[in-house]
Amino acid sequence: MLLRRCLALALAVALPATVVADETKPAHTPSPKELLAKSQPQEWRTPDAQNLLVMELPQGRVLIELAPDYAPLHVANIRTMAHEHYYDGLVIERVQDNFVTQWGDAANEDDSHTSKLKPLGSAKDRLPPEYTRPYDAKLPFTALKDGDFYAPEVGFSEGFPVGRDKAHQQEWLTHCYGMVGVGRDIDPETGSGSELYAVIGQAPRALDRNIAVVGRVLQGMEYLSGLPRGTGPLGFYEKPEQRITIRSVRLAADLPANERPSVEVLRADSATFTALVGAKRNRLDDFYRIPAGKVDVCSVNIPARDAKATH
Amino acid sequence: MLLRRCLALALAVALPATVVADETKPAHTPSPKELLAKSQPQEWRTPDAQNLLVMELPQGRVLIELAPDYAPLHVANIRTMAHEHYYDGLVIERVQDNFVTQWGDAANEDDSHTSKLKPLGSAKDRLPPEYTRPYDAKLPFTALKDGDFYAPEVGFSEGFPVGRDKAHQQEWLTHCYGMVGVGRDIDPETGSGSELYAVIGQAPRALDRNIAVVGRVLQGMEYLSGLPRGTGPLGFYEKPEQRITIRSVRLAADLPANERPSVEVLRADSATFTALVGAKRNRLDDFYRIPAGKVDVCSVNIPARDAKATH
Repeated sequence: MLLRRCLALALAVALPATVVADETKPAHTPSPKELLAKSQPQEWRTPDAQNLLVMELPQGRVLIELAPDYAPLHVANIRTMAHEHYYDGLVIERVQDNFVTQWGDAANEDDSHTSKLKPLGSAKDRLPPEYTRPYDAKLPFTALKDGDFYAPEVGFSEGFPVGRDKAHQQEWLTHCYGMVGVGRDIDPETGSGSELYAVIGQAPRALDRNIAVVGRVLQGMEYLSGLPRGTGPLGFYEKPEQRITIRSVRLAADLPANERPSVEVLRADSATFTALVGAKRNRLDDFYRIPAGKVDVCSVNIPARDAKATH
Repeated sequence: MLLRRCLALALAVALPATVVADETKPAHTPSPKELLAKSQPQEWRTPDAQNLLVMELPQGRVLIELAPDYAPLHVANIRTMAHEHYYDGLVIERVQDNFVTQWGDAANEDDSHTSKLKPLGSAKDRLPPEYTRPYDAKLPFTALKDGDFYAPEVGFSEGFPVGRDKAHQQEWLTHCYGMVGVGRDIDPETGSGSELYAVIGQAPRALDRNIAVVGRVLQGMEYLSGLPRGTGPLGFYEKPEQRITIRSVRLAADLPANERPSVEVLRADSATFTALVGAKRNRLDDFYRIPAGKVDVCSVNIPARDAKATH
């Protein structure tokens, strides 16, 4: 029996939709699964292989889409590091509950042995802060009409949640679950991409506009979020043996064609995405008694899928 | 060196506060650690032993404070089940990324073997829905002046985040990270507390007012959130051996005095809590360039501590 499983059912997969008698007043919203099943091939986008990071962990593969429109210098630097295999053998060194999983060079954790830092190769050690970018009406942008608690305007720029401030002519990627950012020191020019983190808790939106956000995890998020939390200050692992060694990080463009991931991302300007957001905004299936009537930008999931498994 | 560790420093622990020359315009906000170090003993509250669940997992101890003001029948039922050792030997059966960790009777997962369900003893199998409660101005309530994206009003009722709707004379616990709720079937009266979940991702606020929320994890959240994600539908573990067996769940009041946890929770109506919220709202330390100016109810952490370790 399914008794008490249905917390789940109501939220993530399929409750059978009843027949809709009146299109203007649906008795039930279709489930995400149903909506995705009806999506059209042209509603899906294949990320540019130049923007796709493939991180191999002992637990599995993590795919990260980079956002060069929002942090071009940082993304270029990360591409260089991936190209030169800088990340191979570095570690996940920090998992702070309800905040971030961070990976990089554990020698940063050792105050006295700076000489052991892995050389950055052709990559730059310092970059100008790219915390926001100039507002550009030509960038893809699908507004979320619900508004936002923190930003004047929010929406989605292809695969990324975005905040905008027309008055100040700025836009930026928002710190939602699964977003990837660049660790830095107090000095704003100390970010390079050699230390990266992914958000694994409640969206830390206070970080917005204070740090360079470079991308979003498309697949394998569970390998970053489902790790034991570090017990040291700030969630750093206290013992070296607790750290998780990164086997490799490659740019998909650097991989042979037959080894590239076949991931696709639902277009934010597609009808299916609009329907998904609408269903999330107002759950009208049998489980929900009171639809929220709103959805916040970090509660919207932009679906990604394995194209090979789909077609 | 601390290079690139400071993403962490800025967010969770201590940057040294510079000397404040002008009390009205602090150049830096004190860190949470500094604020807590200056807190007074009377600012801390010891949860009633009747409201404290002690769940022993192989990974460690999880402490949950129950909220009888908000779901009295469910809390009473959970107390009964804990008193009769109902939960002992049940399992964590589901860890859905960015959503919930759920525990209960795995026999619920088996459609054909309902006879194997563990008997509920003196506890009730069905309870009236306690998704909201009547508005009561006499309940403790510390308003969060920032407002909210979802609820007309939010704040904190002792150790719990709360939404209120004066117009409809209702209030309810909000689904923030670490909140504990009652799994149920489609039928709203099928919740009993035999299946419980804790929020481990972005606050699923659409669940507010649709399910009975019964408490909050005070300690040991990392043992619920840092688990491998289930690979079955809705994050259920696919193989029985992946499930985590609960050693025991006891009400603190049922434990010998010397075995009771010595946990304390910061009072929401204390000056230190007000200062913590203020510091979170406007980060003015060296790391932050642009303070958010706002904080949402689910980004506010209500600190808990071990009194024995403190005094």
